[in-house]
Amino acid sequence: MQFVINRDYFVQSVQHVSKAISSRTTIPILTGIKIVADHEGVTLTGSDSDISIECFIPKEENDQQLVDIVQEGSIVLQAKFFTEIVKKLPSDKIEVVVQDQFATTLRSGSSVFNLNGLDPEEYPRLPQIEEDNLFQVQNDLMKNIIRQTVFAVSTAETRPILTGVNWQVENKQLICTATDSHRLAMRKAAIETNIDELNFTNVVIPGKSLNELNKIIDDNNELLDIVVTENQVLFKSKNLLFFSRLLDGNYPATKNMIPDHSKTDIILETKGFLQAIERALLLSRDGKNNVVNFKTLEDGIVEITSVTPEIGRVTEKIDTKDLSGEELRISFNGKNIIDALKIVDSTEVKISFTGAMSPFLVRPVESDNALHLFSPVRTY
Amino acid sequence: MQFVINRDYFVQSVQHVSKAISSRTTIPILTGIKIVADHEGVTLTGSDSDISIECFIPKEENDQQLVDIVQEGSIVLQAKFFTEIVKKLPSDKIEVVVQDQFATTLRSGSSVFNLNGLDPEEYPRLPQIEEDNLFQVQNDLMKNIIRQTVFAVSTAETRPILTGVNWQVENKQLICTATDSHRLAMRKAAIETNIDELNFTNVVIPGKSLNELNKIIDDNNELLDIVVTENQVLFKSKNLLFFSRLLDGNYPATKNMIPDHSKTDIILETKGFLQAIERALLLSRDGKNNVVNFKTLEDGIVEITSVTPEIGRVTEKIDTKDLSGEELRISFNGKNIIDALKIVDSTEVKISFTGAMSPFLVRPVESDNALHLFSPVRTY
Repeated sequence: MQFVINRDYFVQSVQHVSKAISSRTTIPILTGIKIVADHEGVTLTGSDSDISIECFIPKEENDQQLVDIVQEGSIVLQAKFFTEIVKKLPSDKIEVVVQDQFATTLRSGSSVFNLNGLDPEEYPRLPQIEEDNLFQVQNDLMKNIIRQTVFAVSTAETRPILTGVNWQVENKQLICTATDSHRLAMRKAAIETNIDELNFTNVVIPGKSLNELNKIIDDNNELLDIVVTENQVLFKSKNLLFFSRLLDGNYPATKNMIPDHSKTDIILETKGFLQAIERALLLSRDGKNNVVNFKTLEDGIVEITSVTPEIGRVTEKIDTKDLSGEELRISFNGKNIIDALKIVDSTEVKISFTGAMSPFLVRPVESDNALHLFSPVRTY
Repeated sequence: MQFVINRDYFVQSVQHVSKAISSRTTIPILTGIKIVADHEGVTLTGSDSDISIECFIPKEENDQQLVDIVQEGSIVLQAKFFTEIVKKLPSDKIEVVVQDQFATTLRSGSSVFNLNGLDPEEYPRLPQIEEDNLFQVQNDLMKNIIRQTVFAVSTAETRPILTGVNWQVENKQLICTATDSHRLAMRKAAIETNIDELNFTNVVIPGKSLNELNKIIDDNNELLDIVVTENQVLFKSKNLLFFSRLLDGNYPATKNMIPDHSKTDIILETKGFLQAIERALLLSRDGKNNVVNFKTLEDGIVEITSVTPEIGRVTEKIDTKDLSGEELRISFNGKNIIDALKIVDSTEVKISFTGAMSPFLVRPVESDNALHLFSPVRTY
């Protein structure tokens, strides 16, 4: 194998596929990046067997030559070193030459790296995906959907299914749900598809996969192809394939958990509410439960308090935009509310309570495509 | 005690004095910030007994009222919480009120913090400093002196005296030296003083103190007052006092270590040399010795190589600006050279070798106020 490649494109592609590579893998070949040069260009692959990422650099793009293929071939190079090397090479072109026994030479300017490569024949094949269930979402919308749900997945391995985000499609609408059983985040979005009967309910994508995908997809309005199979999901954008396995098991039914009536409704300015809870938690920084007490007062004012006996007490008063229904005293995990308020795309939120012992809803005022559900905390 | 204070000034002063406070102190009162309000303004103090920092906020500055003192007094508040709280308070004014039993209330906008304070009478007094040995250096020059020496102190506690930077003054010149016994950094600077006979040799300031001082002093050309006593150094700038204890013991004589002749002299472009060594070390990232081999070739070219048997080999060729004297092959710790090249204020450096087994010098070409000395590494 021998080719000369544009450094910036190479660096970006190497960084993309590196996101799939784990240093803790038990399969030695997966610590490497697979590089394949053929007559169309150069393809890079990284994988930890849960996530696989493939990046393609074409020979030409926009009339600019990106790769000059002298001899086709393939090699696997240690990702840990290779990623750092390509970033620091001095010239805007990099020559890659593979000789006998996978001995590989990288040349750039006056730098020469001789690296011991690995046998590309040992590298596992990527999953073959049947593209029956294909739909599309804009890149920027997909980034929002991920950001607004994945923070709420469980980090505990006691119920592995909750470490993923549940994706459902019905009536050309995608419904994404994440919960760690104390809080739930749900986000809806319209999808584009040519398949009239596209419906599925139990597609659970690992939170880690979605986080890595979010780092790679560009923040633009191009369409991202999404293909769902029984045990894999594939995201396809220009020159990029991102595969993730799905989680096994049945995601819990969450629809009936969401209350359909309320006794107290409050509209608050998102930023002021967020900052008040952040201050209320300042004294419980070392505490584990992050409990905040919330109380309605007269004249449309709510009060937030938090007490840490040995340190002190915080009291915050907030003017509501609207307060209707019954008086209320409730305690909740302030950290969970902060997580949600940080990703709400709305200057005001509506909070709907059905009593001090019942889960309550936080929703953006400016759209109905998202909701957050929280369990209260018993303080006695 | 009761006062109302400008939030931005309060935040900055609290952050400054916090730099002296260690959470690992064995003296409970030193986990707090001491706050004193008197008729002139508010004084904050933080200390870990090695470093003590005092910040003063005057009642008025530039016709702006900064503090309104309602009642004089003092209190000690837990630094960990207090620093975070003042940063996040919602209004541009903060009211501080101390009641019985050191119970303290902070009010700002609609936020109220009730904190348990500590008895200010328990707080240790700051050292009393005789200002016999006073000299001055511009703030920005002092920052440079610190940056260009402190990186070379020893981090090992086997020879505690080497964890500090040695300061000498003779003939109105400050000479600062740091060494970990493998590399040495020296920086000279002119000082301003009214004392004709100001001379001292064995003032050793802990590296940690200089690092903290560097974070606090502004990057401007105002004069910083420096006072040296037998066991303390005091830095004084506007509204700020920074005390550090000195290290006990005799700093080793370093003057005779610096070779006064050379057999091979090379002038290199600083940035290109730095980047070549950085690349040469890429494959030895997990290695401990960071050994780089350096060799003169024909036509004013030098070659840098590094080999990590299981991973590969790097070869870098560099055009010198000038190369004179004997041929040379030498090995050295590349990481130490990188540290020095990063802080050299010169686009070119001159390297002077006196043989493969002898220490060598790296000096800026554009000034004679700094030098770096390195031991070679034996590779056989």
